[in-house]
Amino acid sequence: MNRVLLTGFGAYADEADNPSGAIARRLDGQRIDGFDVSGAVVPVDTEQIRPALSAAIEFTRPDVVILTGVAPGRTAPALERVAINVRDFPIPDIAGRTPIDEPVVTDAPAAYFTTLPVKAIVDAWRRVGIPGYVSQTAGTYLCNQVFYLARHLLRESTARVGMLHIPATPPRAAAVAMPPIPSMAIDHLEEAVRLAISIAARHEGPDLSIGGGAIS
Amino acid sequence: MNRVLLTGFGAYADEADNPSGAIARRLDGQRIDGFDVSGAVVPVDTEQIRPALSAAIEFTRPDVVILTGVAPGRTAPALERVAINVRDFPIPDIAGRTPIDEPVVTDAPAAYFTTLPVKAIVDAWRRVGIPGYVSQTAGTYLCNQVFYLARHLLRESTARVGMLHIPATPPRAAAVAMPPIPSMAIDHLEEAVRLAISIAARHEGPDLSIGGGAIS
Amino acid sequence: MNRVLLTGFGAYADEADNPSGAIARRLDGQRIDGFDVSGAVVPVDTEQIRPALSAAIEFTRPDVVILTGVAPGRTAPALERVAINVRDFPIPDIAGRTPIDEPVVTDAPAAYFTTLPVKAIVDAWRRVGIPGYVSQTAGTYLCNQVFYLARHLLRESTARVGMLHIPATPPRAAAVAMPPIPSMAIDHLEEAVRLAISIAARHEGPDLSIGGGAIS
Amino acid sequence: MNRVLLTGFGAYADEADNPSGAIARRLDGQRIDGFDVSGAVVPVDTEQIRPALSAAIEFTRPDVVILTGVAPGRTAPALERVAINVRDFPIPDIAGRTPIDEPVVTDAPAAYFTTLPVKAIVDAWRRVGIPGYVSQTAGTYLCNQVFYLARHLLRESTARVGMLHIPATPPRAAAVAMPPIPSMAIDHLEEAVRLAISIAARHEGPDLSIGGGAIS
Repeated sequence: MNRVLLTGFGAYADEADNPSGAIARRLDGQRIDGFDVSGAVVPVDTEQIRPALSAAIEFTRPDVVILTGVAPGRTAPALERVAINVRDFPIPDIAGRTPIDEPVVTDAPAAYFTTLPVKAIVDAWRRVGIPGYVSQTAGTYLCNQVFYLARHLLRESTARVGMLHIPATPPRAAAVAMPPIPSMAIDHLEEAVRLAISIAARHEGPDLSIGGGAIS
Repeated sequence: MNRVLLTGFGAYADEADNPSGAIARRLDGQRIDGFDVSGAVVPVDTEQIRPALSAAIEFTRPDVVILTGVAPGRTAPALERVAINVRDFPIPDIAGRTPIDEPVVTDAPAAYFTTLPVKAIVDAWRRVGIPGYVSQTAGTYLCNQVFYLARHLLRESTARVGMLHIPATPPRAAAVAMPPIPSMAIDHLEEAVRLAISIAARHEGPDLSIGGGAIS
Repeated sequence: MNRVLLTGFGAYADEADNPSGAIARRLDGQRIDGFDVSGAVVPVDTEQIRPALSAAIEFTRPDVVILTGVAPGRTAPALERVAINVRDFPIPDIAGRTPIDEPVVTDAPAAYFTTLPVKAIVDAWRRVGIPGYVSQTAGTYLCNQVFYLARHLLRESTARVGMLHIPATPPRAAAVAMPPIPSMAIDHLEEAVRLAISIAARHEGPDLSIGGGAIS
Repeated sequence: MNRVLLTGFGAYADEADNPSGAIARRLDGQRIDGFDVSGAVVPVDTEQIRPALSAAIEFTRPDVVILTGVAPGRTAPALERVAINVRDFPIPDIAGRTPIDEPVVTDAPAAYFTTLPVKAIVDAWRRVGIPGYVSQTAGTYLCNQVFYLARHLLRESTARVGMLHIPATPPRAAAVAMPPIPSMAIDHLEEAVRLAISIAARHEGPDLSIGGGAIS
């Protein structure tokens, strides 16, 4: 494997400066552990995601795809376990659309599991002092949509595909109610993404057998 | 429709008196809006769930199946949107087993969506002042397992199948750290379950088109 | 001791039907364990609290004063440890005032501790399965103000004075965002208040020596 | 003003590498905006705090005293509004003592307010994108004790005295349950402490009149 597609999102709602898109731009064109990273920013627009993602995949022809998005309120980076075939938007996308209980792809499976070695990534993060975890839901908004789409488009491919949610950054947390939502500095989030790319590209064999589940 | 199977769980870990099982016993044999309720308590044992659930389904031949379980830490009753084909136990079951990233059913779909009218149930709850919501994850423990299994076993059936998570009850919350976890009285939880059964059995046509999603 | 003054608050902001005031009205005129309860509803108005409270104290001449208020977002009933001499309102009172860093009483102490046996009350709650705890802050809004004022006005008295915060009730929680805030049924909150009155009136000697603190 | 005493704590419980003590050591001997910082690490020992703090005050003869401590679970740096005269330890100190409802100083006031310009510090943090807030409780453990003691010892002095709680750092958060507790990188926390020192030393006149309160 030697090509990595890293996507982030553009601005939406209160995220005027979306850190997921900023990290994708920062790492675009870089080489990490011998793998070439192609960073792409996709719009928070339910109709534009498919053409944007398809173009990025066609252009990059990736061996690894890591989709990132910001999850305000979460405490640490999280690898998503599963993408589900539904769009139920709690807030509008940037074009003002709020689909309710509509599929991402008609007549497609209910869900796809990640094909990233998520346990190995969480384990690698912890070894260097980065908090992180496996999340059981990517929500029902654009992050879940791009994750589901990428898995669907690459379902016959050997590419490893998964989603990484990042928490808010300090400037965003500084702008909201008291007490602030959790935050982590963008440099540290970039470091978490770099390490995720590295493990995703280099990990061999089945994922580590370490716990990452939830009671409910 | 006139037969309802309502399951709850038995004791496990800190849940010596599991309120989900208690409600299933309370409603066993009752008639709600013309529907006969058969209540069953299933063990928190990953190997015993399938025989227990199969027997209950065979015995009841239900038109509606509502699986319930307790979700300590949650604030209100929740209808689960989706069951996923994985077992990743954060704590052992009562037989001491902690499967990691094993499927619930080998060679089966990644997930099944609920077939209950979950939006209509949440809407009905709110109209009578019961807080509740649609949850995007049932976890990766026994609750998710029984939900996945029931949907899988009844995948060719017209039966409506779904999962309802309840919060802890006050006596359980009174026993833990300060400040206590959220709780609701068992009588009110029973009322929420009764109303869910009623709507699940009587609702006609597609589910209500009201928002119930999450950003992440 | 045989006279108890129980206050709650009237409507404000999103609390159109303030459960603290409702409980004060319910218990007004009742006799609990031989003690006569006088219930009073005070307005969420920073200028009206002192005359309203003074009148209620003069009228009742209480041996025990329990001030109650609703704390949306909390999980269980809480006895407040301390009242502080500050008003720093995060939202306006019903007259539109938002004092910032103003004292409750000029030239008065920085704080007063509760004189209720708060540990004994929490212990009694737990024995009957009611979750509850000792809270280290009553905030800087009206609840803290009425608590500080009552302690100040009765500082030379032998009356026991304290504040009891209650969580939201289910109908209020059903009206807000998903997932809902925690809630407890008003009948159970009334039961918690009744037991607090009973222990506050009957407890003899120093408070129980059981932990109720917080790291931060 | 030109001398600043900055204290942090040593190890305790799960805080083998207490970030508050680490920052005090980092800034010891530095000059910030013309003010000389003397950093001291005090032990998490209820009997040793007074001699350690007294010695540091006598040695430094500070114009500004900022006490820091870690508050695992909090989301951002917080300036404490008030110190209360109680010790009610939820966990033992490093010598195994767990005082319950004992005063910090016998026959002393119930509380002291901070004399730092806490609103101006929070405002300065936000202007540079550091999330932070005014907290209404410093708990009832060692952080509150050292804050109360410093205010008491310097009650006749013109020195500005206050407490600054910091959240956990990423390595600590990486070691605990999933999802992790909130965390911020120690370099950013050091930056927050530096700015607090700068504002505390330079701010003139009364504190800013901006909201920093809580409903409950």
